Amino acid sequence: MLPYIYLSNPENFFNVIMFITMAPAEEYMSNLDYEKYKSSQHIFEKKIRKVIEETISLDQLKCDKSKLINMQRKMNPEQDLYAMSSITDVDISENSRMFVVASLIDKIPNLGGIARTCEVLGIRNLVLSSKKLTENQDFKSVSMTAEKNLNIIEVTPSNLEEFLKEKQAEGFEIVGAEQTVDSKNLIKFSFPRKCIMILGHEKEGIPSNILGFLDHTIEIPQFGLLRSLNVHVTGALFMWEYCKQHIVGGSTQT
Amino acid sequence: MLPYIYLSNPENFFNVIMFITMAPAEEYMSNLDYEKYKSSQHIFEKKIRKVIEETISLDQLKCDKSKLINMQRKMNPEQDLYAMSSITDVDISENSRMFVVASLIDKIPNLGGIARTCEVLGIRNLVLSSKKLTENQDFKSVSMTAEKNLNIIEVTPSNLEEFLKEKQAEGFEIVGAEQTVDSKNLIKFSFPRKCIMILGHEKEGIPSNILGFLDHTIEIPQFGLLRSLNVHVTGALFMWEYCKQHIVGGSTQT
Repeated sequence: MLPYIYLSNPENFFNVIMFITMAPAEEYMSNLDYEKYKSSQHIFEKKIRKVIEETISLDQLKCDKSKLINMQRKMNPEQDLYAMSSITDVDISENSRMFVVASLIDKIPNLGGIARTCEVLGIRNLVLSSKKLTENQDFKSVSMTAEKNLNIIEVTPSNLEEFLKEKQAEGFEIVGAEQTVDSKNLIKFSFPRKCIMILGHEKEGIPSNILGFLDHTIEIPQFGLLRSLNVHVTGALFMWEYCKQHIVGGSTQT
Repeated sequence: MLPYIYLSNPENFFNVIMFITMAPAEEYMSNLDYEKYKSSQHIFEKKIRKVIEETISLDQLKCDKSKLINMQRKMNPEQDLYAMSSITDVDISENSRMFVVASLIDKIPNLGGIARTCEVLGIRNLVLSSKKLTENQDFKSVSMTAEKNLNIIEVTPSNLEEFLKEKQAEGFEIVGAEQTVDSKNLIKFSFPRKCIMILGHEKEGIPSNILGFLDHTIEIPQFGLLRSLNVHVTGALFMWEYCKQHIVGGSTQT
């Protein structure tokens, strides 16, 4: 595999190695063909796990745990090799049924950030006002290529009502992140598995015509003097709660 | 009160009104003396709540709930007045014992963002490598003046070990957000109330000398191909979990 990669793509060789060895996305930036190299990443991970298991046996761990220095699991191929086992190994395809609607959001870095957070937390569907936004440099520099692993759907703000009607007909429930007179607390909220999550504009929030479509209006409790969180952080907390309720161990839930 | 404000501070009048009426922080930007105007904000909020309660009686709500259009609770003094009651009204001072350590973080927007999220979620103590960072325009444009309502502590990376030793002696436990061979999953983690939470550098994470001090190394489960979340989002999820466990209804916990 490696000689093949080198021959087919010599100038990208370093990035391919970084990808296969699962270096943090911040440490490289490339236009790799993920699907192409995914299997070699998987083989690499398996090998490394085996090496680690053989090197550090369970007995050793029991005897010498106090002496073992904790170490980052991030990978740097120029230094030593450490295990990259992810804490999770769940097939999320069946459990992850959330669409994050970011069509109302203005600022490109917020959109790129939301794409990255979606990808990491296992949310697979991101709705943007235009697919072209993902080509913007300000988007890419924050998204860390997350958009390549997401299902991006294009819905302009003026088509949003139509989109929501369609999804409601398909059995999805619409959840809006907004502080309204009717909002429920995120802490106590059980997310529907088939969930359309709407984030509001940075200043204007969710417009009243869209508020009318919401099955649930949910807000994050606020303890300070400021009135609101950044929209990317708001989205992240909602996705995190959905992820905990449906993606992690979601196969045992209804 | 208002004529007094006008006389003492005519050029700031608009911002003072925005503050007292609890407009979202994005809609103004000022160097207000929060403490000075807080009581008038409180009086305003009480008045508005009363008006709303009188206008919309519970009976009406029961009869006509289906007809009531949900509306944002954000306040725009140029338009109609809506209730600004926060979903929470908890005295957090006793429950909020977390210090967020951001000394290792490089990028100013991340620091400003973390300050804002701290403030909103009721985390009162933020450790930065230098207090001067809060004067940076890139910090201010993201923090929305959150730093004025936070206890900012200055600890340089080289003094961090010393700081952690002191805090451990005071009974605090050190929690690090890092992917290590020994990390536990954030989903299952019970935060100590007296908690020092360390966020790592954007690329380098938490250095090994600091990893040695951690009582708990905690990571966020990752479901995608990307290796990590943005450090601000990571911090936000940790703070959110702490907030849920200790600040919300924290007075009834031990």
